[in-house]
Amino acid sequence: MHLNVYLAGEIHTDWREQIMSGAKDLAITFTGPVTDHAASDDCGVAILGQEEKKFWHDHKGAKLNAIRTRKALAEADVVVVRFGDKYRQWNAAFDAGYAAALGKSIIVLHGADHQHALKEVDAAALAVAETPEQVVSLLRYTLHGTLP
Amino acid sequence: MHLNVYLAGEIHTDWREQIMSGAKDLAITFTGPVTDHAASDDCGVAILGQEEKKFWHDHKGAKLNAIRTRKALAEADVVVVRFGDKYRQWNAAFDAGYAAALGKSIIVLHGADHQHALKEVDAAALAVAETPEQVVSLLRYTLHGTLP
Amino acid sequence: MHLNVYLAGEIHTDWREQIMSGAKDLAITFTGPVTDHAASDDCGVAILGQEEKKFWHDHKGAKLNAIRTRKALAEADVVVVRFGDKYRQWNAAFDAGYAAALGKSIIVLHGADHQHALKEVDAAALAVAETPEQVVSLLRYTLHGTLP
Amino acid sequence: MHLNVYLAGEIHTDWREQIMSGAKDLAITFTGPVTDHAASDDCGVAILGQEEKKFWHDHKGAKLNAIRTRKALAEADVVVVRFGDKYRQWNAAFDAGYAAALGKSIIVLHGADHQHALKEVDAAALAVAETPEQVVSLLRYTLHGTLP
Amino acid sequence: MHLNVYLAGEIHTDWREQIMSGAKDLAITFTGPVTDHAASDDCGVAILGQEEKKFWHDHKGAKLNAIRTRKALAEADVVVVRFGDKYRQWNAAFDAGYAAALGKSIIVLHGADHQHALKEVDAAALAVAETPEQVVSLLRYTLHGTLP
Amino acid sequence: MHLNVYLAGEIHTDWREQIMSGAKDLAITFTGPVTDHAASDDCGVAILGQEEKKFWHDHKGAKLNAIRTRKALAEADVVVVRFGDKYRQWNAAFDAGYAAALGKSIIVLHGADHQHALKEVDAAALAVAETPEQVVSLLRYTLHGTLP
Amino acid sequence: MHLNVYLAGEIHTDWREQIMSGAKDLAITFTGPVTDHAASDDCGVAILGQEEKKFWHDHKGAKLNAIRTRKALAEADVVVVRFGDKYRQWNAAFDAGYAAALGKSIIVLHGADHQHALKEVDAAALAVAETPEQVVSLLRYTLHGTLP
Amino acid sequence: MHLNVYLAGEIHTDWREQIMSGAKDLAITFTGPVTDHAASDDCGVAILGQEEKKFWHDHKGAKLNAIRTRKALAEADVVVVRFGDKYRQWNAAFDAGYAAALGKSIIVLHGADHQHALKEVDAAALAVAETPEQVVSLLRYTLHGTLP
Repeated sequence: MHLNVYLAGEIHTDWREQIMSGAKDLAITFTGPVTDHAASDDCGVAILGQEEKKFWHDHKGAKLNAIRTRKALAEADVVVVRFGDKYRQWNAAFDAGYAAALGKSIIVLHGADHQHALKEVDAAALAVAETPEQVVSLLRYTLHGTLP
Repeated sequence: MHLNVYLAGEIHTDWREQIMSGAKDLAITFTGPVTDHAASDDCGVAILGQEEKKFWHDHKGAKLNAIRTRKALAEADVVVVRFGDKYRQWNAAFDAGYAAALGKSIIVLHGADHQHALKEVDAAALAVAETPEQVVSLLRYTLHGTLP
Repeated sequence: MHLNVYLAGEIHTDWREQIMSGAKDLAITFTGPVTDHAASDDCGVAILGQEEKKFWHDHKGAKLNAIRTRKALAEADVVVVRFGDKYRQWNAAFDAGYAAALGKSIIVLHGADHQHALKEVDAAALAVAETPEQVVSLLRYTLHGTLP
Repeated sequence: MHLNVYLAGEIHTDWREQIMSGAKDLAITFTGPVTDHAASDDCGVAILGQEEKKFWHDHKGAKLNAIRTRKALAEADVVVVRFGDKYRQWNAAFDAGYAAALGKSIIVLHGADHQHALKEVDAAALAVAETPEQVVSLLRYTLHGTLP
Repeated sequence: MHLNVYLAGEIHTDWREQIMSGAKDLAITFTGPVTDHAASDDCGVAILGQEEKKFWHDHKGAKLNAIRTRKALAEADVVVVRFGDKYRQWNAAFDAGYAAALGKSIIVLHGADHQHALKEVDAAALAVAETPEQVVSLLRYTLHGTLP
Repeated sequence: MHLNVYLAGEIHTDWREQIMSGAKDLAITFTGPVTDHAASDDCGVAILGQEEKKFWHDHKGAKLNAIRTRKALAEADVVVVRFGDKYRQWNAAFDAGYAAALGKSIIVLHGADHQHALKEVDAAALAVAETPEQVVSLLRYTLHGTLP
Repeated sequence: MHLNVYLAGEIHTDWREQIMSGAKDLAITFTGPVTDHAASDDCGVAILGQEEKKFWHDHKGAKLNAIRTRKALAEADVVVVRFGDKYRQWNAAFDAGYAAALGKSIIVLHGADHQHALKEVDAAALAVAETPEQVVSLLRYTLHGTLP
Repeated sequence: MHLNVYLAGEIHTDWREQIMSGAKDLAITFTGPVTDHAASDDCGVAILGQEEKKFWHDHKGAKLNAIRTRKALAEADVVVVRFGDKYRQWNAAFDAGYAAALGKSIIVLHGADHQHALKEVDAAALAVAETPEQVVSLLRYTLHGTLP
């Protein structure tokens, strides 16, 4: 068995690297959004031309990013959604809802303090983890049936 | 033409009433989540029995609420998602993502200050409004082709 | 909002009547399998001709019953699956799996003694109830947002 | 032609090994659930933390196991469902229903004594076998058109 | 419960009338193809203009008839396919295959002499009847659970 | 049988009225885009605020119009696409492609001079008509099996 | 580009070999049903045990064959359906209908004498050929854009 | 990540070569229609026999070309649709609508002069480019997150 795992959400800590490093012996292809914050924000206007209004600046970028994220979400078997401590992170919740409607297996990764605010997201998940190590263990168990 | 419109998101202001009132002459069936905050939080344990852990308390409630929201979202032609000023509102973004993956027509309703943080949600929408009056005008135009 | 609710599973107690009676003021259309055990077992051969082998006797009946159950399951918003104390009830679990793959909202109704054996079924459900009264309360909350 | 075959159901006899051994010259990728009974029961709490209530202990495990089984069922061309002599085996019937709704080709494997209780499951199948050898012959015929 | 039943196949005997007459007390909406053989053959050129080649004459008619049959097949819960004694009736088998791929419940109606030639069609059906009276009984049982 | 018929394409002649008038005795619900050219062009900025760039002016309008057209196309049984003599009419061809991918029955309505340029669109259609009267006859035949 | 091509229908002449031989330089994977007539008829009882009634003998065989044909049809890009001169060939028309409902590209291969009887099948096809050589040319053009 | 990109539309300039050349270091499989104009127009009659009427000449060709384009569109992750200066190009808009209904990520490539006429097509796209170089940059960013 081989898994496609999409790593959605927070882009300001190294949680993706921790999971990929911990799972490097597993038959998993990891995908994720562009994590270069500046490039992700400006990609639309950088390629397709400047906009005076910030709304359209953002709009062109968000749509361009959607080419990548939709493709990766559609091909994912498992979607891990990470909620961190900073920013609104509505795009993380949006990806979780998108994945839920596609019937993907969802793992949510967040600290205990977000538990109540994320209850609808957690209710759509097959696992709720607090650490990247737990996510690695979940993936390892899924593929090999072995416990930590 | 008749529209099913789901009103997702914020439950602490009267935006739903404003829209329903403004659109009361239109052939629209409005649905939405349970907006009694206390009932929505406690419904799971109130019906199915208490839980010691807050996580499971929330989990039972969130799942029960999903029976209603999934049904209404699945039957909606248009999903209006309102982001207000308070709380994390991850469930609003989750509903938006869910609606997007189902191919629903999405109208986002939020103030200018949330524009950057909501760019991925806005990019999946067919209209971004700032006031309930605009939403009513959008629905009226959709049904009758008339402008304000 | 109007709900189509399919009542699957056990046919030897009056749980269906209890739910329908308790929910008779709600905007719900209830459906279910043929609950006349003898008719359900013999329908195939009674209409289409006798079989010497019990396997084909059962086969013709089970397929005929599937015309009704597939139609009702496909149109259901909510599927309530009841596991009682007698018989193998594999058809109840089959219906639950069928409903899960169709993305239906599932409510499982069973006693505490079956909890471990039904853990996979419960994990696919949005609510696990122990009494018909609880099911009525779940449906009432879904439609009206009111708690018992 | 290459087949993906999911082996669902009983985990206490060596029927999977018999089928895989008999079919080892065929272009088949076999998948199945985690068959280590203890690991399968405890995986949720072992990775994500203990629960006091047995229900949630089981719930966390059943959901985690669903990541693997949903993926494998979704990719299967053929689902073989084995019903043995012990336990309730509702998860086997659940998997059969899930596979049926996905339109998978189903082979049921059970002894003659379960024939009446499994008539709904058998009615959804393309073949009903009594021995692992028969399943191997069915798969061999499917791929090569050769009879035993 | 209400059923949409599409009556496909032979257009030269009164089997449709027999079924509709026998089922006239049931909550069933019956649909079927245009059964005026001449109109059905010539409709394309009669409305859209003559063709010199018989192939395009037939082609225009067959496509026009498909507007009706696809709509009715798509909305049917049950598709009854009748094979009579005359003509090739490839369109009946085509409709059966079309219905099977859509997951419709299929009832095949044919005499014993066609049994071997129709085995693939029968294998995709939930019931194989020999008389219109049996079809009526199957529909009555499906709706009311009563046997003849 | 009742038909939902979407009338797509040209908005500068009275072909829609001719069809609706000719079919007024038939069980058909007709839908179509907003045919007030000025309103259709300006709806986005009229409701949601002015744009300096013509591109975004058009963009907001086209997206708003999509709420109506997607809903009506999704619910249509038959899509009639009219190509007239003026303008580029790429939106008509876009609607035809959209309808084709949804599996809708398509009737194309155009003059003989456009035949070569529309060959890909015609190839996806079940009928190619030259006059509104022919479209009425096609719809009448579909519903009643009667020829002109 | 690589094509999966399913060769359905007649099993008594060498048309499959002619196509596969003519197309052996093309990037095509050909599949088809079991063409050993005796094995195809008897496979069910040979593996799963004898039946006294011919109906069930055929039924078990037809269902077993469906495991192979459904898999191959589902994965096909193009379905070629050959109608020959002998037998009823209802299974060929059934496969054509099945492929049509799945949205497959269909090529029908038959002599001019069957043209009227096959008009519904031809109307669902993207090409109607009379010889295997034409089918090879169609496939070669599809892949390479070259004409004979 | 690997992308399948379908290049639809204009066949009279070298825009496809420019994109493929610029993106030759990227993990992309490009597909497109047959771009030999004469072969594309005549393929139907060249292989399947002459037609007297130009309509059927075109019809046979357009259907044959659809085998290739449907396959490639169905497998595409991204569909680039180019509108040039010559011809009606209704097939380009048809492909865009087809791709939109399938949920594909669409990039439209056209000059500023077509902006108003293409507003409905642009509204369904995730990016609107004016040059092949921009398309290459969009694809490069999608795969690697790097800006020009």
